Amino acid sequence: MSQILALAGGVGGAKLALGFARILPPDRLTVVVNTADDDVFHGLHVSPDLDTVMYTLGGSVNPETGWGRAGDSFNSLETLGRLGAETWFKLGDRDLAVHILRTQLLREGHTLSEVTRHLCERFGVRHAVVPMTDHPVRTVVDTDEGAMSFQHYFVRRRCEPRVREIRFNGAERAAPSPWFEFALERATAIVICPSNPFLSVAPILAIPGVRDRIIELDVPKVAVSPIVAGKAIKGPAAKLIQELTGEPAGCVAVARQYRGLCTHMVIDRSDGAFASEIARLGMKVEVAQTIMETEEDKIALARSLLALLGPGG
Amino acid sequence: MSQILALAGGVGGAKLALGFARILPPDRLTVVVNTADDDVFHGLHVSPDLDTVMYTLGGSVNPETGWGRAGDSFNSLETLGRLGAETWFKLGDRDLAVHILRTQLLREGHTLSEVTRHLCERFGVRHAVVPMTDHPVRTVVDTDEGAMSFQHYFVRRRCEPRVREIRFNGAERAAPSPWFEFALERATAIVICPSNPFLSVAPILAIPGVRDRIIELDVPKVAVSPIVAGKAIKGPAAKLIQELTGEPAGCVAVARQYRGLCTHMVIDRSDGAFASEIARLGMKVEVAQTIMETEEDKIALARSLLALLGPGG
Repeated sequence: MSQILALAGGVGGAKLALGFARILPPDRLTVVVNTADDDVFHGLHVSPDLDTVMYTLGGSVNPETGWGRAGDSFNSLETLGRLGAETWFKLGDRDLAVHILRTQLLREGHTLSEVTRHLCERFGVRHAVVPMTDHPVRTVVDTDEGAMSFQHYFVRRRCEPRVREIRFNGAERAAPSPWFEFALERATAIVICPSNPFLSVAPILAIPGVRDRIIELDVPKVAVSPIVAGKAIKGPAAKLIQELTGEPAGCVAVARQYRGLCTHMVIDRSDGAFASEIARLGMKVEVAQTIMETEEDKIALARSLLALLGPGG
Repeated sequence: MSQILALAGGVGGAKLALGFARILPPDRLTVVVNTADDDVFHGLHVSPDLDTVMYTLGGSVNPETGWGRAGDSFNSLETLGRLGAETWFKLGDRDLAVHILRTQLLREGHTLSEVTRHLCERFGVRHAVVPMTDHPVRTVVDTDEGAMSFQHYFVRRRCEPRVREIRFNGAERAAPSPWFEFALERATAIVICPSNPFLSVAPILAIPGVRDRIIELDVPKVAVSPIVAGKAIKGPAAKLIQELTGEPAGCVAVARQYRGLCTHMVIDRSDGAFASEIARLGMKVEVAQTIMETEEDKIALARSLLALLGPGG
């Protein structure tokens, strides 16, 4: 039986994960989520990407932002601000409950995998949404304004500083989470979701052994470009390509990040002209509608990926 | 200059503290608050009595309950319930922010005194509202249903179990908080607020040295009965008198708890008939309107106490 192992970051990854979840039974999909942008706010452990995927698959994500809870209030955060705390990271009251419980369970000795499973069950998420690791890995962004945490760069500074290097502190001591490990052993296909290659996918691949094991797997491996017509659907991927590689932002630059790792690359219809250039990198190229606005778009993209992956998909 | 040291529990103590705060400058009043009913909910340190006094003096207490924040929402708690957490202890979203910040600051190594001072400043509380101790003291109620935490007895079981004994775990290793210590050294009068003698005032007096030092202080010491016409204004004081002393609930039984400690006892007008019986216990008795519904009531009671205390008040 085919087993899809999807690597995901936040909003873009969650969209494609939802597409898969709508057409695959729970025992055929594992979504491994980046945790290097986890952070601590007000003493609470926040896992933004895990929550985005969990809320999306559980049907409670804020449809306007793609992250956070639908219809949330911000009374607690408002009070925290009044008490002198920094409130640039927006945490709603319903969202806070998740961070409060996660922090409590982690302090009691549960692993992030166990906590995530408990939360997913309670939110009605039937597919496996798992952290990439139970170890602390933290993205540090070296910029022209100095080194800063991912959330500081991403939320507080709105990706404005020019990035010189991205580090994943702790990655060298991390190991894949148990469910990630299990999925790696059984995967019949790997899907890299249209997430940021440098900030969302790279930390997963930075866990010792993960990149090599994926390379060695004799299964189709497809990446979906998060860059369409030279622009990122969301976030700083396009800007980072220019700052980190010097190349123009585009699906070709994304493909170059996955060269030697992926067997297939899916690019957007509007980027069809780049297909041959990517093919020269040694990947099969498929053109699809990759912009996912409606649930139908997400399902359609998931279906075309399964078709592309063949019997393993 | 006179210095009032008031010992307080939650709602009743907060009412009288507000009366004093309205007529005394900040440097003439210290409200020492019971912390033995502090507890941990969802991994967060909750100090119910401190918060009740702080919210009351800061003008943000829920006027309908006497505790919690005015106009609070309960979205976070609702989500915690959905996630499987117990939600019998009602924590509003604005209230939660206080517990989140307190927990964070305590974890960072600040004392409860320091955290309380920070919170009070932010809430605009100008008078000293201080914890009785920075050490963990926890009330355990031994009942016919077994031993339980104070909040379990008080909130979850609504004071229904029959109480055999009340213990203050950790009290023997506790010391007065620095501001309590300071106030003890300078007090020209002691006021025991109309709080529960067994659950709110006893833990303060159980801190090693506190009872003896108050006895030795050559200043007027007045207790206000929380029992009026045989009934507690709020909470289980009347029921506890019967269960723990076998006496009928009344201001005489309260006076007996403070015998040898207080020089004066203030009872409600409706209890004037008991004045001579209390006088026989060795205390001067004053009759006043002790039921505090309006702010005027609170100020009036504070004023009559100051008059009673003479030059020290």
